[in-house]
Amino acid sequence: MALIHHPVLSKNGDVIASAVTNLDLHDIARTSKTYGVGRFYVVTPLEDQAELVRKIIDHWVSGAGAVYNPIRREALLLLRVKASFEEVLADIRRKGAGDPVTVATSAKPRVPGLSFGELKGMLKTGERPVVLALGTAWGLTEAFIGRADYTLEPITGGTAYNHLPVRSAAAIMLDRLLGRG
Amino acid sequence: MALIHHPVLSKNGDVIASAVTNLDLHDIARTSKTYGVGRFYVVTPLEDQAELVRKIIDHWVSGAGAVYNPIRREALLLLRVKASFEEVLADIRRKGAGDPVTVATSAKPRVPGLSFGELKGMLKTGERPVVLALGTAWGLTEAFIGRADYTLEPITGGTAYNHLPVRSAAAIMLDRLLGRG
Repeated sequence: MALIHHPVLSKNGDVIASAVTNLDLHDIARTSKTYGVGRFYVVTPLEDQAELVRKIIDHWVSGAGAVYNPIRREALLLLRVKASFEEVLADIRRKGAGDPVTVATSAKPRVPGLSFGELKGMLKTGERPVVLALGTAWGLTEAFIGRADYTLEPITGGTAYNHLPVRSAAAIMLDRLLGRG
Repeated sequence: MALIHHPVLSKNGDVIASAVTNLDLHDIARTSKTYGVGRFYVVTPLEDQAELVRKIIDHWVSGAGAVYNPIRREALLLLRVKASFEEVLADIRRKGAGDPVTVATSAKPRVPGLSFGELKGMLKTGERPVVLALGTAWGLTEAFIGRADYTLEPITGGTAYNHLPVRSAAAIMLDRLLGRG
């Protein structure tokens, strides 16, 4: 899992670096741990934001939080902060499992699209590591999506309303891809 | 959906009234709206906490937030605050759709349990309204679970780790019950 804070869109459609939200880190780390995800990357080029993430990791992994709540520690052990998506890919390659398949996510359907079933099948073969990129703020930029190998089909809930929080979208995606069978 | 702040368990197993978390309201309201849920109840007997929820609703439904983000307004229109679960049931009965089936949720399997498939079938018949109760803090009390008609099977992610945030659990449950077909 990779949670992208840059490049993402603002409400007005500008390319921005969004602020890191503490609860995003906790929620997506815990969900990732529940579904057996290998790593959860937080991507931000802003040094003060990266420093904040490192402080949160330190607190829960080796500081007072680790004693207070060892269960949360287990989840936050998955977390890494990187300055760019390229650094994420380099880190995955260093792990030696091969060149990662990059999958962007979006609330709108894209080409080349990938259904949840297709991606689930890809994960089952385990031939190559897969990195799922989720945008914060108003979503990933067109340029980012264009560079990804695939874009995952949007989550729909049977209504015209499709404004899920990124934390909730991450949970639903992991359940569809890695839950039950 | 009903998000319960009392009676729930503390980390030490005591029965408490937990504090309302702003992001729980936004996340579960948006997910509920995405999946076509009729209402999202926040249950707290603490008047200062209920007042906080009403202020949040006012801000987003009729205050400055409604102008700033009308999409969020749509979601928060589903939100109601009640002092007890009994008041939730009374409110559902007043809507005239009949006596609600109460379904508790838990991270542990319970008797009488209900699978996601069984509950999905029950929702499809639409014979009676269904209220799904989610506990905050360390979960619903045994007494609360004992009074519910059913307890939904726990979410599992294929690992031994089962510590999902309530916001993420709510999203996964709604997707399993109301998403896709």
